[in-house]
Amino acid sequence: MNPERTPARQHTVRQHNLALVLRQVAAGGPLSRARIASATGLTKATVSSLVDDLVHAGLLTELGPEARGVVGRPGSDLELNRSRYAGLGLEVNVDYVAVCVADLAGDARHLRILAGDNRRHSPNQVLARAVRIARTAMAAAGAAGLEVVGLAIALPGLVEAGEGRLRVAPNLGWTDVPVVDYLASRIEAGLLPIMVDNEANLAALGELWFGGHGDLASFVHVSGEIGVGGGIVIDRELFRGVQGFAGELGHVTVQADGPPCRCGARGCLEQVAGQEAILRAAGLHAEAGTRGGQPAGSVAELLSRARAGEPRVLEAIEAAGRALGIAVAAAVNLVAPEAVVLGGLYTVLEPWLRGPLTAELQRRAIGLRWSPVRVLASRLGPEAAVRGAAGAVVREVLSSPGAVLKTLTPTGS
Amino acid sequence: MNPERTPARQHTVRQHNLALVLRQVAAGGPLSRARIASATGLTKATVSSLVDDLVHAGLLTELGPEARGVVGRPGSDLELNRSRYAGLGLEVNVDYVAVCVADLAGDARHLRILAGDNRRHSPNQVLARAVRIARTAMAAAGAAGLEVVGLAIALPGLVEAGEGRLRVAPNLGWTDVPVVDYLASRIEAGLLPIMVDNEANLAALGELWFGGHGDLASFVHVSGEIGVGGGIVIDRELFRGVQGFAGELGHVTVQADGPPCRCGARGCLEQVAGQEAILRAAGLHAEAGTRGGQPAGSVAELLSRARAGEPRVLEAIEAAGRALGIAVAAAVNLVAPEAVVLGGLYTVLEPWLRGPLTAELQRRAIGLRWSPVRVLASRLGPEAAVRGAAGAVVREVLSSPGAVLKTLTPTGS
Repeated sequence: MNPERTPARQHTVRQHNLALVLRQVAAGGPLSRARIASATGLTKATVSSLVDDLVHAGLLTELGPEARGVVGRPGSDLELNRSRYAGLGLEVNVDYVAVCVADLAGDARHLRILAGDNRRHSPNQVLARAVRIARTAMAAAGAAGLEVVGLAIALPGLVEAGEGRLRVAPNLGWTDVPVVDYLASRIEAGLLPIMVDNEANLAALGELWFGGHGDLASFVHVSGEIGVGGGIVIDRELFRGVQGFAGELGHVTVQADGPPCRCGARGCLEQVAGQEAILRAAGLHAEAGTRGGQPAGSVAELLSRARAGEPRVLEAIEAAGRALGIAVAAAVNLVAPEAVVLGGLYTVLEPWLRGPLTAELQRRAIGLRWSPVRVLASRLGPEAAVRGAAGAVVREVLSSPGAVLKTLTPTGS
Repeated sequence: MNPERTPARQHTVRQHNLALVLRQVAAGGPLSRARIASATGLTKATVSSLVDDLVHAGLLTELGPEARGVVGRPGSDLELNRSRYAGLGLEVNVDYVAVCVADLAGDARHLRILAGDNRRHSPNQVLARAVRIARTAMAAAGAAGLEVVGLAIALPGLVEAGEGRLRVAPNLGWTDVPVVDYLASRIEAGLLPIMVDNEANLAALGELWFGGHGDLASFVHVSGEIGVGGGIVIDRELFRGVQGFAGELGHVTVQADGPPCRCGARGCLEQVAGQEAILRAAGLHAEAGTRGGQPAGSVAELLSRARAGEPRVLEAIEAAGRALGIAVAAAVNLVAPEAVVLGGLYTVLEPWLRGPLTAELQRRAIGLRWSPVRVLASRLGPEAAVRGAAGAVVREVLSSPGAVLKTLTPTGS
């Protein structure tokens, strides 16, 4: 073995083991050193050394009053330190921007969704708004003693994550926006590279991590916004396809000669079941001004009229449900997931959507009699993507603690 | 360590290493023992011992005249033994049955496709026909010195592989047929359990293994038959979904209020682009009797009229191409593969299908400008599924050589 390579190799092994210990505690904590050792196959001495570094770095913390000031006490339980580091998630969608600060356990410690039609502004204007709410969130995190170590942003379009660019967001009318460069020159967001992803991908990850679907290994997440996003989770991982473009359920054709879509096609799901299509069909689109602080034609108005049983509103939601059923059936026929999770706008519309959606799905998905697919409403609703973005940063810290630990000297194997 | 478990563990390690050596030779042979050792990380002594067993068992063979009778000679190259064991593939489709014998390299040594409308017969009558052609193929294999060690059967419907049953084949009108029990009681097909799978899945595997797509890691295979089958390959593996029901492209909706399908839905792809739909639209369906030995309304007739430029025939194929484009665009939007491979009937219709299919795909698949998808014609055509079935048996032998080697005593690690 080349002796010059040995230190690098030991360093790599230690990084791997640090992440292994973190992952064990994240998945099953609180855990004692002894239980970490038996779960990982590492020796107790190695675990103690790794845990000391992780506690010292502020990634793990010891439970119980008897552990205070006694770092290294073998009997005390360890859990993720929720008081030191945080991930920052941003979302730019068509009619809102959102921000979330999540601690190492993924819990949202600060979350804001600000409505506003981003189609009326340039990419730079909208991103400047995202920067402002990010700074406010970081200040709030700082006041709570949390240090933001990384940032991920969710965008409503095709994203080239490696290049940090938004390729196209049809509903915003944006093409080729260097989002990461813009943010990196304006926000000092910690130790990790800025991450960027499709909002539907991050919403699916948000559902996977924080949606309470512990029993589901595979599902299709459908989020209704102005556009309709889809994210496919297989074996508890996001399925990305070539260049991360998988899961574009909103552009599955539901009416071959249907209304034109901003993507250039006709009869895409989002032209029939997207937020604006539903509002328009419900007769709410043309209203001007505001009503009770909400923009007219808003989702709140739609909901109150649906609850009042207004026929035109119920028909509009039912038509959306049928279209969703056709597109979801295509996804079920092709991907065969265990469940479909209705997110975004569809979370609140679920009581009215479920009937027509399920009827079309039962009719059009060929395997359903032998392999039933559950239709679930998200518990996160429109928060899924921004929580997924913050969660993606936290996951990065837990899987690669090296960025946080880089000031520490390796002390063992 | 419990000493009673040591032999079993050594046995398992040896099984693993035998498969590792086989896989290396299958992927990169011919290979010398020294190159196998460096590629696998095993010692040369271990490789020599493993290779001796594999040569003795008839799974590997030594190349070159100087190696004859000198088993264990370190310098001679090794390759898969193509003269000893074979896999048997069967296919029951709607209008044909097929059989293939493949040697350990996957090469088809015997292949027959027998036309005949299986809808006119009971499951037992059709399976009896499959048994007859299987016996004929096994006799042919035996005459060539090949021993059939396993059997896999491809079926045009939803299959529960674990239970060996066909759940439903809408185009045959079959439900819940215990295919494996039927075959197992009538064919002595060697050492391995009988395998059963969806014909579209096995066709996609046939394409992956034998289709000459060495550069493709992910593709959607579309096979046109009476039904339309789909198989999704991701990272060079078949994507099965829950219970193996993924890839049902033939039942993706292309016209929400289109013609009724045997599955119970309306406007499924196969009702617009399946073989009978094309023949009917081309005006070839109603003809009775035969013409030149081919059944009237056959694919041969369709092809000759297309070549002659008959407008109704060209319009029928073009309509099928547009429908294919809509369904394939759904698959591309959802799964984002590198390529789409046109198989079965579509292989020969590809010159006419490509234009309308590609036009719809370009229009409806949102990521295509940034992530082009290749549209390829299969080189295997209707042989893909039965070759995949025979190949699946061969893969099983190569990945689990224990069944073939069970008469040998372990001789090392």
